[in-house]
Amino acid sequence: MDQFAVKVFVRLRPSVLDPAGEATKSASIKLGAEGIKSLRIGKMIEVKIEGDGENEVREKIDLLCDRLFANTVIEDYEYSLEKL
Amino acid sequence: MDQFAVKVFVRLRPSVLDPAGEATKSASIKLGAEGIKSLRIGKMIEVKIEGDGENEVREKIDLLCDRLFANTVIEDYEYSLEKL
Repeated sequence: MDQFAVKVFVRLRPSVLDPAGEATKSASIKLGAEGIKSLRIGKMIEVKIEGDGENEVREKIDLLCDRLFANTVIEDYEYSLEKL
Repeated sequence: MDQFAVKVFVRLRPSVLDPAGEATKSASIKLGAEGIKSLRIGKMIEVKIEGDGENEVREKIDLLCDRLFANTVIEDYEYSLEKL
């Protein structure tokens, strides 16, 4: 069995409004951070997982992303995978 | 003025319990994804920001991370910065 470190990045699709991001953007400007063009907030899920090779782990992560980590109606995901 | 794309990653410190991560881990196992050793959830904040050079932008991002993006009592942050 190999162990992998997977980083999953889940973000709202560009066409979807990000109210939390907008609120954080205006708070940032109030703090004096000028020049912000856009600010969007997403999720980062860090998983340590065992499996018989990279393909099997990719299958598991795809399943988890589609069914649990991301709402694929409004969110996109991508992930990086590193063998430990 | 230069424009930069900044990705900020905020995560709970390793010593801090992650209830959302634990709940997601058990839901993942119920979905049949065996072999998960650990699962932790953090934030990813993507900012497009203008500034007079990299140092000025780093100063702004450090301010925002310390005061707004991260609760530095229980969270750590790191960020990547790319000139557009």
